[in-house]
This record gives sequence, structure tokens and C-alpha cells, in this order.
Amino acid sequence: MALIDDAARTYELDRRHVFHSWSAQAGLDPLVITRAAGSYVWDGEGNRLLDFSSQLVNTNIGHQYPDVVEAIVEQARRLTTIAPQHANDVRSEAARLIVERAPGDLDRVFFTNGGADANEHAVRMARLVTGRPKVLSRYRSYHGGTQTAINLTGDPRRFPNDAGNAGVVHFFGPYLYRSHFHARTEAEECERALAHLEQVIELEGPQTVAAVLLEAIPGTAGIMVPPPGYLAGVRELCDRYGIVLIIDEVMTGFGRTGAWFHSATEGVVPDLLTFAKGVNSGYVPLGGVLIGDRIAEHFAQRPYPGGLTYSGHPLACAAAVAAITVMDHDVVVENALGIGQEVIAPGLAQLAERHPSVGEVRGLGVFWAIELVTDRDTRAPVAPTGGGSPIMAEAVRTAKSLGLLPFTNSNRIHVVPPCTVSPQEAQEGLDILDKVLSRVDDLVDEANKG
Amino acid sequence: MALIDDAARTYELDRRHVFHSWSAQAGLDPLVITRAAGSYVWDGEGNRLLDFSSQLVNTNIGHQYPDVVEAIVEQARRLTTIAPQHANDVRSEAARLIVERAPGDLDRVFFTNGGADANEHAVRMARLVTGRPKVLSRYRSYHGGTQTAINLTGDPRRFPNDAGNAGVVHFFGPYLYRSHFHARTEAEECERALAHLEQVIELEGPQTVAAVLLEAIPGTAGIMVPPPGYLAGVRELCDRYGIVLIIDEVMTGFGRTGAWFHSATEGVVPDLLTFAKGVNSGYVPLGGVLIGDRIAEHFAQRPYPGGLTYSGHPLACAAAVAAITVMDHDVVVENALGIGQEVIAPGLAQLAERHPSVGEVRGLGVFWAIELVTDRDTRAPVAPTGGGSPIMAEAVRTAKSLGLLPFTNSNRIHVVPPCTVSPQEAQEGLDILDKVLSRVDDLVDEANKG
Ligand SMILES: Cc1ncc(COP(=O)(O)O)c(C=O)c1O
Ligand SMILES: Cc1ncc(COP(=O)(O)O)c(C=O)c1O
Repeated sequence: MALIDDAARTYELDRRHVFHSWSAQAGLDPLVITRAAGSYVWDGEGNRLLDFSSQLVNTNIGHQYPDVVEAIVEQARRLTTIAPQHANDVRSEAARLIVERAPGDLDRVFFTNGGADANEHAVRMARLVTGRPKVLSRYRSYHGGTQTAINLTGDPRRFPNDAGNAGVVHFFGPYLYRSHFHARTEAEECERALAHLEQVIELEGPQTVAAVLLEAIPGTAGIMVPPPGYLAGVRELCDRYGIVLIIDEVMTGFGRTGAWFHSATEGVVPDLLTFAKGVNSGYVPLGGVLIGDRIAEHFAQRPYPGGLTYSGHPLACAAAVAAITVMDHDVVVENALGIGQEVIAPGLAQLAERHPSVGEVRGLGVFWAIELVTDRDTRAPVAPTGGGSPIMAEAVRTAKSLGLLPFTNSNRIHVVPPCTVSPQEAQEGLDILDKVLSRVDDLVDEANKG
Repeated sequence: MALIDDAARTYELDRRHVFHSWSAQAGLDPLVITRAAGSYVWDGEGNRLLDFSSQLVNTNIGHQYPDVVEAIVEQARRLTTIAPQHANDVRSEAARLIVERAPGDLDRVFFTNGGADANEHAVRMARLVTGRPKVLSRYRSYHGGTQTAINLTGDPRRFPNDAGNAGVVHFFGPYLYRSHFHARTEAEECERALAHLEQVIELEGPQTVAAVLLEAIPGTAGIMVPPPGYLAGVRELCDRYGIVLIIDEVMTGFGRTGAWFHSATEGVVPDLLTFAKGVNSGYVPLGGVLIGDRIAEHFAQRPYPGGLTYSGHPLACAAAVAAITVMDHDVVVENALGIGQEVIAPGLAQLAERHPSVGEVRGLGVFWAIELVTDRDTRAPVAPTGGGSPIMAEAVRTAKSLGLLPFTNSNRIHVVPPCTVSPQEAQEGLDILDKVLSRVDDLVDEANKG
């Protein structure tokens, strides 16, 4: 079926006037999306697709959750925008609700528009509080697209941007499946990863290190759930050396992992915690930095030298208030945890058994990765880090043709439906993935023979 | 009158949980804003204030413009968010409407969340296209709060942030009232400012300069309208040396100066033009980069290494489509131009005559600055650049007490009402400013005597 009229115009104007992220512009063939509801979206040909991407892993409450839509409607009619220097009821209330769910002394919010600027501002706070220049962040990570955020990022997208690198040093985190530390168990991986980080701190000079910044669980880079004790170990190292700990929960926060914040589950309170996405499911752009006492005290009397026009935007904050409220009321976070334990974990385990192209499955909540390999022994990936391959392209095509919108990166398919996904929908997605993986098995077979 | 109940709670939660931009947190006493309509806002005590700030000079269509509010409502009910890799009707349409109003070959839009990230991405594009590292920007400018954007900024807010300065070099722009070039006429100022910029380019090494970035008219830094020929002269210098010209129209764009883009009025087409604020009056966070052929061709086959989750956010784009449509239909841009010529220009000229504390008034459209001085001969400012003073604080207090919400910076009061302001409202504001300036005259007198 051809694109329907409106969709054809959307497509044509897009190709003519919209410059897309992370892409060469000439080769693009974007999917037109015309409608979305709950766990589904509809494309320009009228096909319904199960959204196992949550777009960019942000629609934690799914699409068009009625109460949140109506809260946006109400706020739009009441007061769309007010500058950050003033006080406003929904901004105050959003801050209260977020702080209430955050661990420890993370009692204040600096609101931003998204995740990248949240990380930019967190790094600035850390540098000013410590008076130190460097920031340590992980290889295999993503922290955003602005200059400092992309330098902090540990994937190939930063390579073309490293000219303006201002004091970022990358270290290795735990990733047992491809252990940098030649470890055989989670416990060994954890211990060695912490010893490695301590050596990096020592050899960079602790007095030069402002912050360690890391995702609670690296997301786009592969959903490598850190072994128990790792985050607490990093916290301990930061304390020992006077380093500010910044945990990026932009992707992990607000339900994705079956908790409000994954770091809290690990019993860790960072000095700064960055969030975005799930805070209001991206219905209106919003991000922020949660700020603990050490940082807040520094800026009680000294001006914080940073800001933005839309900090604490009322419409975005109203969406956050509503999203958090419905997540509470409709036990969305608990649903994510349960779906992970009862449907996705066993389902993916079965797929891993059945499909030789699956190297590893890992995750929790509604936050899972399937690593595709050409050989289970060598663990050779079906696509290079940060790159594509014919096999991955075919996996995406197959998924879409079977009614699933996937999230893929490098050699991985991520299973990241909304936190509101029903057991039936989750199973429907796994069934489609079963077929996709059969196709991948065949292609890997062919490649290995050819 | 005391704060009404809700406002008291808003205030208390704000002080407890909201971390504010550009400020020491302990001393803050934010105004609670509970309601807004057209050119007015209402504070927590029920007072109506004429909004001569347009918040942060972003509500170009005033507050709660009904058609734009209803467009947000409709889009919220239809489709709040879709990831940037897909195509979507309102994103396509917003791009078309923006491009249609932009000069020359600025035919594609990279959407961002605000002005800072627009500048971040524009600078990245310039560096990658030229393969050169440095960016030249003006002293006395503002380009945003993320790391690269604040380094580019030419006001004291960048000082605490210059540790991470990645190749930014500042030059002087035209500002006849405080001429760096010892000029006596606009023509002389223009010629000398261009000769200065050329020398900076030569002595930095043209082969090291990726971009010249400047506001079409420096906004927060003082609304110094460049003399005729200056922007064209900069364009010519950039062409001569293969440098990318980036014009920041975040504050000047979309009606503020009585035109869609001020650079176009000057007959100048930059290679990249950044916008935000007025594109949808900040009803939903949105910014972007307009991209000309030179840059687009570079990224046709090469991936652009940058992006963000909310690029081309449907709700934000729907607000832009509606805002641009009503601005056309209700001749809002023309209104801004006419109010400037017929009400504000003559009104401020009279105030300047009547009040010895006024050193200079300058601007166009609904974009004006009043410079306050303790002495017209020495032109000594009543507050230092980037700082406050008791006189300025008293000016703000007086304005508010008389029902006017002002925008002030350093020793200046900016007259920046919405583009939709009526002649009566503009006059009401000028009448209040008349009283404010009488108070300033008295305080200056006292200070000069004491
Ligand atoms: C962990 C993490 N941090 C930061 C970001 C950047 O957020 P944004 O795209 O809103 O700037 C992302 C986005 O995917 C992310 O996953
Ligand atoms: C000229 C100019 N550029 C950039 C910015 C930054 O925009 P934002 O605050 O949306 O990041 C501003 C904000 O005031 C501005 O006036």
C-alpha cells in the first residue's frame, strides 16, 4: 500500500526541509508516523506497529496516556510559559514530586530541556564545587549531543567531536560478556572494574578530577547492568578522593528498570543525578539535575553561572506532575518490574536458547538487550560498535514488516517497550522477535558458509 | 496584600526544591506568577503587571494567544511526541513555514530544544565543514548556557566557565555609544569595526577560523543595532576567508525587530542561522538551526554527528506552525515594526530628553534599550557590566510597584514587550517608565551629591 496523501506530503517536506540527527542526509528514508496510542504507533501506510523502542526509550507511559494529555491541555489553557526567574505552581509541584522519589539528600531540581543539557550543567556544578578540571566517564556510554555531553559520551559518535574535548577521560566499566578485565564471574568483574577506576583516578591525579559521571546502567551502549556493589564501590571511591559522583538516569530513571531510580535500588546516592525522558515520557521536552547538599551549599551564596530560557517550563512541568501521578496511581513502575520478571526475562531466555545468533540477553524491568553474534564462541558481533551491517538492516526490516518497531544499536536489538506494556503485548513482541531471530540465524548461517 | 494560599505554597516549594539559573540560591525572592494573558501577567498577590520583558524576550505573540493554545491542545490530543528519526506532519510543516520565511538558501532546519543547543550544533557543523577549530564571537553577547554556548558568550557569566574554553576568540563589535574604535559616526564605527574583525581573523590565522558567530543585534548585552553595512561587511569577510557565518537570531528572530529575521533586512544570508524563542513564543520549548547549501552539501553523504531526543518535537512544532500562522494572519510582525516607529521611538526620545539619567535609547521594533548613567558626559553606568546596583534594584522595585514587569541587565532597562502589544499598552508602559526614570534621576542626583 502506498503512502496515504498526507503522509506523502509529510515525507516529501521532511526530505526537503528537515535535517536529521546522526545521519548523512542523502540516504534517509524515514518512517512517517501519523498516530500513536499506548504501546502502538501507525505508519503512513496505515500499518500498526508495536512500539518496542518507546521512541528513543522515552515514552515510559506509552503513547497518549489520557490523563497526561488532559493535564497538558489544561495547563496549555491556563499558562504555557513563565520565565525561570519567577515562581510557578506546576514548576514547584513537579520539583516536589521528583525530589520525593529521589534518594537521600537530592532535594533540589535544576530543570533543563533534555538530557544533554542536564549533563552539561551537572558537570559545570562539579567543576565549580571542586575547582578541578577533569571528568571521568565510561567507554560504552551515551550522555547527549551538545559539545561537553558528546565528549563525555563513550561511543563512536564522539570521534568527530573530540576536537573541542575539554578534560574528559574515559575508563572501562563492568561488562562481563566482553570483559576488559579478563574476569569470569560478576564478582570478579566488579572488583576488577573498581580497581581499574581507582588506578585511573590515581594516575590522572585525584586533585584534577572533578567528577565521575556514569549511567546507572549504560543504555544505548548496551544495557550492561552493573554487578551488585559496583555503583556503591564507585560512590566509595568518589568519597575517598573528594570527587563528585554524577549518575545519569536519563534513560534508566522513572520506571524503565522497574524502579524510580536504579541507583537508589543499589543503595547509592550520587551528588548529582541527571534525568529527562521518563520524567514526563517526553510528551513535552524536559530534563533536569537533582542536587544534593554538598553542591547546593556551594551555590547558596555563590551564583550558579548557568541557565536557559525554558528552565522549569510550566507546560513541561505540568506533564511531569501528571506523568508521575498516573505512574503512582496505575502502579506503572511495578508493572515494568513485573513484566520484566514474568514475561521478558523468561521469554528472552527461551529465545536465547532457540537462536544460535543470540550471544547474550541481559537487562531488567522493560530495559533489555539482545546481543547478536556470528559465533557464540568468539562472540563476534553481527555489526561493529556504532555501525550497521546488512544483517542488522534486515533484522529491522523484518521486524517492521511483522508489525514491530524495534530499537537497535550496533549488533543489538533492545527490548524497551513502555513501562505500561501489558503481558499480552510484551508476548506479542517476543513472538515477533522469535521470527526476526530465525531470519538472523539464517543470515548468519549463510554468512558463515559463504 | 499577602500571598494568596496557593501562591504561598508555590513560593515555599520553589524556595525549597527549585534551583534557579544564574543566581546564588540563598538570597532569592522570586515573584510568583499565577496567570498571564496578552501583554499582562498576574502575581501571587493578585496584582496585574504589564509584561515589558516578554519573560526572557520570548513571548513574541504575548501570553496565551488563543489560536496557538488551541493548536497545542489539538496536537496534545493527537500526538505529543515522536522520535526524530521518523517523519511527522507538524514537524514537516513547521520546517516548511520557517524555511519559507528565511532568506536565501537556508532551506533545511535542524530542530533543537532551545537557543543554546542550536548554537552548539551550528558551531559543530561549521567546524566539521571547514576542518578548522576556532570560532570568533563578540564581546558583549549572549549565546546560551551550555558549555560551548557560554564560552561563546561575551558577558561576565562566561568567566566562571572558561576553564573548558574550546577555541573561542572574542572580538569587538560596533557600539558607538561606547566606541572601542574611538569613532564619532556610525559610518566610522562600522568601517573600524570591520577593519578590527579582519585584523583579528588575520592574526588568529584564517585557516584556523571555522566560524564567525554573532547576534543579528546583540540582545541581552544591550541591543546595539549594528550600523548599516556591518553585517554585510562581516558576510564579505567570511566569504573572503572561507569562514562560516553563523547569525544568532534567537532573540531577534520572528518579529522582535519588526521583521522575520533581522539579517534578511540587512540583505545578509548567513551559512547558518540559529533561532528559538519567538518561533513559537516559547509556549513549548523549541529552537533550531537553519542550514544553507554549503553546509547541507557537506552532510549529504557524511553523517552529521549530533542529535537530541526531542529534535523536531511534534507538540513544539505544532505550536510553531500555529504561532507563525497567527503572526501572518494578524500582521504581528508589522505591528512590532509600527509600534516601534510610532510609539516607542518617539516615546523613548521624549524620556531621554526629560531624564538626565538616560544616557542613550536605541533599538527598533519592540526591541529597545535605555542606558542609565550617572553622568551624561562621562557616560558612567549606574551599574557595572553584568552586575547590579542599588539604583537598578530600586528601578525594578519601582516599576513593579507601578504595575510594570521590566527586563533589566547591568545599567539598562530593556523595552521588550510582545510584538502584539497595542499602542495603548505600549504607552501605558512608557508612562510607568517615565515615573521610574524620575526616581532614577533622584537617586543619581543623591549619589552624585553624596
Ligand atoms: C543516558 C542518556 N543520557 C543523556 C541523554 C541525552 O538526552 P537528550 O537526547 O534529551 O539530550 C540520553 C539520550 O538518549 C541518554 O540515553
Ligand atoms: C541571542 C541568544 N542566543 C541564545 C540564547 C540561548 O537560548 P536558550 O536560553 O533557549 O538556550 C539566548 C537566550 O536568551 C539569546 O538571547
